[in-house]
Amino acid sequence: MNPWSQFAPELVTDLYELTMAASYLREGMSAEATFSLFIRKYPPGRSYFVAAGLDHLIDLVTGFRFQEDSLRFLASTGKFSPGFLDCLRELRFTGSIRALPEGRIFFADEPLLEVTAPIIESQVIETLVINVLQLETLIASKAARCVHAARGLDLIDFSLRRTHGVDAGLKAARASYLAGFAGTSNVLAGKIYGIPIFGTMAHSYITSFEREMDAFRAFAKAFPESTVLLIDTYDTLNGARKAVQVAQELAAQGRSLKGVRLDSGDLAALSREVRRILNDAGLDHVRILASGSLDEFKIQELREAGSAIDAFAVGTHMGVSADAPYFDIAYKLVEYGNRPVLKLSSGKRTWVGRKQIFRAYDASGTMSEDWLCLAEEERPGCEGLLEEVVTRGERLRPEETLDIIRTRFEDDLRRLPAECKDLRNPRFHPVRISQRLQDLEEETSLKVKREELR
Amino acid sequence: MNPWSQFAPELVTDLYELTMAASYLREGMSAEATFSLFIRKYPPGRSYFVAAGLDHLIDLVTGFRFQEDSLRFLASTGKFSPGFLDCLRELRFTGSIRALPEGRIFFADEPLLEVTAPIIESQVIETLVINVLQLETLIASKAARCVHAARGLDLIDFSLRRTHGVDAGLKAARASYLAGFAGTSNVLAGKIYGIPIFGTMAHSYITSFEREMDAFRAFAKAFPESTVLLIDTYDTLNGARKAVQVAQELAAQGRSLKGVRLDSGDLAALSREVRRILNDAGLDHVRILASGSLDEFKIQELREAGSAIDAFAVGTHMGVSADAPYFDIAYKLVEYGNRPVLKLSSGKRTWVGRKQIFRAYDASGTMSEDWLCLAEEERPGCEGLLEEVVTRGERLRPEETLDIIRTRFEDDLRRLPAECKDLRNPRFHPVRISQRLQDLEEETSLKVKREELR
Repeated sequence: MNPWSQFAPELVTDLYELTMAASYLREGMSAEATFSLFIRKYPPGRSYFVAAGLDHLIDLVTGFRFQEDSLRFLASTGKFSPGFLDCLRELRFTGSIRALPEGRIFFADEPLLEVTAPIIESQVIETLVINVLQLETLIASKAARCVHAARGLDLIDFSLRRTHGVDAGLKAARASYLAGFAGTSNVLAGKIYGIPIFGTMAHSYITSFEREMDAFRAFAKAFPESTVLLIDTYDTLNGARKAVQVAQELAAQGRSLKGVRLDSGDLAALSREVRRILNDAGLDHVRILASGSLDEFKIQELREAGSAIDAFAVGTHMGVSADAPYFDIAYKLVEYGNRPVLKLSSGKRTWVGRKQIFRAYDASGTMSEDWLCLAEEERPGCEGLLEEVVTRGERLRPEETLDIIRTRFEDDLRRLPAECKDLRNPRFHPVRISQRLQDLEEETSLKVKREELR
Repeated sequence: MNPWSQFAPELVTDLYELTMAASYLREGMSAEATFSLFIRKYPPGRSYFVAAGLDHLIDLVTGFRFQEDSLRFLASTGKFSPGFLDCLRELRFTGSIRALPEGRIFFADEPLLEVTAPIIESQVIETLVINVLQLETLIASKAARCVHAARGLDLIDFSLRRTHGVDAGLKAARASYLAGFAGTSNVLAGKIYGIPIFGTMAHSYITSFEREMDAFRAFAKAFPESTVLLIDTYDTLNGARKAVQVAQELAAQGRSLKGVRLDSGDLAALSREVRRILNDAGLDHVRILASGSLDEFKIQELREAGSAIDAFAVGTHMGVSADAPYFDIAYKLVEYGNRPVLKLSSGKRTWVGRKQIFRAYDASGTMSEDWLCLAEEERPGCEGLLEEVVTRGERLRPEETLDIIRTRFEDDLRRLPAECKDLRNPRFHPVRISQRLQDLEEETSLKVKREELR
């Protein structure tokens, strides 16, 4: 069965969102609730996150409604009253969303999004909000590290085959592109998002021909303007010498070989030898693309080892964020009907109330510290990061282009202190808590302890 | 922009599948090619895999075609000739697929699928095949470990919020269910796959009420037949005592409290204390559900620590296969036009030719060894595992029910030697290579070396 034909965003939810909503309805609880989405702590070796995925979420929330087919299914479970199903039928998101624009760098405990809406509305979108925003934020945060490690060289997303499904493949292409990748191998992402698409050839292409040289020549004939030859199927240096021959044959027709790809072996050493073989034949313009289990650490190693690689294709490790395949991300109720709320569950702090993040920069424009404050606070000289993107259920501004988001991220990455970008032992950027927020937290905590603990 | 409305399976592909296909067309290469999908090596601590995802793949492959909108996009890239686009327009999958039925346990190097079809057809589905089969196989393999660790206790999938997108959330629910989970919190998976859905309440539900007790009572009122109370929001033992009170109030109406959920703290110790509180009140029937960063290791620990937990909700770690978020899975050309092929790239062996897996059992019915053989070999007394599921582009049998697949997996897990199930230091099950396959590999390798290496 093909599940893709039956997507219904309103059912992309844990059952409990609906049972809770049914109880809210029954209790007549219709006050506004504010939920805050934040990441509790950094995965090992990480010190910053990159916000992504908001545009898709805005579309889903502003278009949120229960289709009849979905209501029929819910009715069939026997768990819900006709009155509640009628409530769902009429349900629209009428609240507001304040969020970090995509591409912004943020830190642990800082909300990347706050939703304020009647509690049924803000509750039933919980699972969807987390699912949509975590994924792109996860991938953009990983891709940003690859971009940093590549120090200006091009990166291409090759992750589609190993991403967790098709949705993830699309989001990996988009999120890595907005963090500075040059493009993707993912054709559907090219179509949907307008991201540049790239491709070379697989080993199967080479082995399907009787001889490697036949394969190279056939490809050059089919794509004379954009030939990139995969040269490691049998022996990389032999492959490089054959590539030289193909380049010379192309040159005789007034064309030029675009590149070669290495996919195995000691990439640093091989790339230098391949460069020498190419240059000795006057092929300085032929680019060397490397692939094969690359991540930010291997890219950094290759850069430091003086490899002769011109571009990196990054697949699995980026596409599944292999060293940190999830964030400790939570969507927590912080205020209900103007009452700040929190839970006391061990080891899991949530900052109460509607909040704003203020960012301070030093004289050189480098980030110096962030402040987590209540939304109504002011902090002169600082930049407020959360922007209202949905008001009364309506999108406040048109979809942003990926170029705008790429530039925003680039600016933030430049302004992030260098020590915070260290791949293994980064410094944690200071996030200070305003006195008013600390006071409210303390007061709320005392009140809850007084009422609930004996 | 909502990308989900624009899914087109034929574009779920790396660009190079299409450029290679264009070259095959140009070269008149239309012979049958066999591709083999297999996992090269085990992630750390792993020793077996569980096949899953085949049904969805069969649907996609037998229904494979290029829609006009997709062809228009490809034309717009300027990379493809009108002749090739016409070829894509007419393209259908006309070949055959032999595969492991879903739920079967298999081992490194064993093909979970072999596709035989004219090379353009078998090449253009590569990315889709890997993307679809890796994900469910990855999750089923992880879920199987949780099921083994739980030793008969119920498991529920709570992963949707943290899975890599919506597609992954659906597949996680399905794959964990077929590996023996009792159900999922994922409502859409319930609708699409008919998997039982479960849910309790979130901390936000509790904190939205003035008092925890108000929240408990309201929920019991709304769902008197299926109340499971989350009791750790403020203090787990206090929560348990309040749950007792609610249970007594329900009992007065002839109803009974179904369960309580613990989500933080020392789950083993707390569960025993909560059990005591419940039993002291005569509530032996109230079940204790535990959640909170659970995986197979924590479940095993909790079982060994004599916790009083009756069921586990497993989320993120299972849903993203956190310790092994990808497999080293490859779709490799093994034969073209009856010529066995392989590549020599360092450290990456592929077994040539069309193959069959034969499984031997000892007298007690336990798996004793597997044999990787050429497809035309026989191995009396052994079970051949790969079954033909698509012939001449048509599905050979109707979709299997999840119950059938669950039973198949259960049987295989029972027959897997106990030492192979150890969670940390498993024994590797022997996979022997038949002499004929070894000979063909050697012969092919020598031929390639002779022709391609100087």
